[in-house]
Amino acid sequence: MNDTLNRQGVLASRPVGIPQAEHFEIRETPVDRPGPGQVLIRNRFWSVEPAMRGWVNAVGNYSEPVAVGAVMRAFSAGEIIASESPEHRVGDRVTGLFGWQTHACVDADVIEHTIQGDDLPLSAYLGVLGLNGITAYFGLLDLGRPQSGQTVVVSTAAGSVGSCVGQIARLHGCRTVGIAGGAAKTALCTEAFGYDAAIDYREDDLESALAAACPNGIDVYFDNTAGPISDAVYRQLALHARIVVCGTSSVANWDPAPVGPRIERSILVKRASMHGLLVFDYRSRYGQARQALEDWIREGRLTWREDILEGVEAAPDAIAGLYRGDNMGKRLIRVG
Amino acid sequence: MNDTLNRQGVLASRPVGIPQAEHFEIRETPVDRPGPGQVLIRNRFWSVEPAMRGWVNAVGNYSEPVAVGAVMRAFSAGEIIASESPEHRVGDRVTGLFGWQTHACVDADVIEHTIQGDDLPLSAYLGVLGLNGITAYFGLLDLGRPQSGQTVVVSTAAGSVGSCVGQIARLHGCRTVGIAGGAAKTALCTEAFGYDAAIDYREDDLESALAAACPNGIDVYFDNTAGPISDAVYRQLALHARIVVCGTSSVANWDPAPVGPRIERSILVKRASMHGLLVFDYRSRYGQARQALEDWIREGRLTWREDILEGVEAAPDAIAGLYRGDNMGKRLIRVG
Repeated sequence: MNDTLNRQGVLASRPVGIPQAEHFEIRETPVDRPGPGQVLIRNRFWSVEPAMRGWVNAVGNYSEPVAVGAVMRAFSAGEIIASESPEHRVGDRVTGLFGWQTHACVDADVIEHTIQGDDLPLSAYLGVLGLNGITAYFGLLDLGRPQSGQTVVVSTAAGSVGSCVGQIARLHGCRTVGIAGGAAKTALCTEAFGYDAAIDYREDDLESALAAACPNGIDVYFDNTAGPISDAVYRQLALHARIVVCGTSSVANWDPAPVGPRIERSILVKRASMHGLLVFDYRSRYGQARQALEDWIREGRLTWREDILEGVEAAPDAIAGLYRGDNMGKRLIRVG
Repeated sequence: MNDTLNRQGVLASRPVGIPQAEHFEIRETPVDRPGPGQVLIRNRFWSVEPAMRGWVNAVGNYSEPVAVGAVMRAFSAGEIIASESPEHRVGDRVTGLFGWQTHACVDADVIEHTIQGDDLPLSAYLGVLGLNGITAYFGLLDLGRPQSGQTVVVSTAAGSVGSCVGQIARLHGCRTVGIAGGAAKTALCTEAFGYDAAIDYREDDLESALAAACPNGIDVYFDNTAGPISDAVYRQLALHARIVVCGTSSVANWDPAPVGPRIERSILVKRASMHGLLVFDYRSRYGQARQALEDWIREGRLTWREDILEGVEAAPDAIAGLYRGDNMGKRLIRVG
């Protein structure tokens, strides 16, 4: 293990739309030493997620865009190898916004979570036990409010958030219907994640497949895509349906917004509601979600898939690959 | 007063889109006598409202379409002139779905409300003290959830629902901004209904006018129009904004739905929510709303405007006129 050289994935130029390999470069710099109140973290895994498109685009969004020339903003997981903070010990396993770098020298308050126990794998804390699982938990339970016997439809149903949504909905007694692209992902939906039905939006006639899978209409739609998939769902809402807008991965560019069928009439006639979800709004309650997710995993009632790329060199193309649908599960980069 | 002839406004043919004068006819039939459990109501006012478009169109909606040849479904207000129901007395002032007819012989349970007291005018119980005011009350307070200091934008702001929304929002300490068509209506907004600002969507540049009137963004949008007015509002939502979809009057035909800019990204980035409103869902709580509205009127804090057409012959063109924007206030037809 080389702890003198920090290898980083850096934003090289600003993309429009989906960031491609050409927009990133690998940079090597000396490892910093922690100052007072700081820790040095040896990252083991970098996260790759759809939201990164928003983080690097110049368009107004949740947070300041990542600066050109800066280390890519990213959640990562690793262990503390040096600490100048009294609250953190060498050997602690931690996650946080440490960026795409092998060695992160950060103020201790950048640590988002210190893992308790050692029975669950580190990588899970970037997915099902990280923001993906927490997003699924609050989005489904707080905004979707599923009731036993209701029908929950999930887009990108085999993905790291979607697969967790489907399983939590099933744990709450719901009929679950997953929408995914390709036979491998729909098979994963029904075989690994327990969906009652899975629809391949590339092959199936979406309207008729939804009608067949959801004979009583759709009570909860957990949406990661927007676009034509959502339009088909909106036409089959049940009375008082809840739509949770978690992501818009099918739309490459929102500047300007693309057009689609207006939804006001569906919302009105069905007395439906639509809710935007940002997991950061639930920060004060992360512990509640993580505890529930850990319990379900330990009880064997919640599973997940990972798609692990090997090495720093995999980073530049990793986001573009997500949008191509390359991955089967939570995409991570193993860097140590 | 002729209580032997019942004059009715009847649906003569099924319209596509906005019903016009040609779709209705006036019919005269003998007045029925009430049977056991029934009452005979002499209607004084018939209501005219945008929702009637939906009631006469064949497209699936809240309720069965009005049959061709049937009395037009309508709220009306009148007094009981004969009663075979022990719970209702001759002279009671009542409202309900008595239809466009001068004499309604109905089962007593069709009476939706029996007016208590006699200090407030009968016509008000079809508008500000009827479903318009109750719609405004629950839509704004239950779904819009305005907080003091927030900005509430209302479309068709001078209308019978909108004017009430604006005033209730103001009573709750909000900044209120009305959108209406034409100088007469915008003047009514600021002078009669206390809006802090009014925007003429026909004359003003909507985007810049909204930006000027809502410097902190739009916290609550109470929408009666959909269409380009809503698109402009959606672009200026504040964080955690609430959109209440009460009507879609700017869209003449929803079959198929017209296209517009997709809204998922705005909903997501602002963590906004959108809620369909149908007042009938609040039936069990009408009394709470009506009491509050009566109190505000008696305290001089809530006002309204009426647009009263005279006589049965005014009925056929009355709905089309609403959609032309002819009326300044709640449209009623006085029939006795």
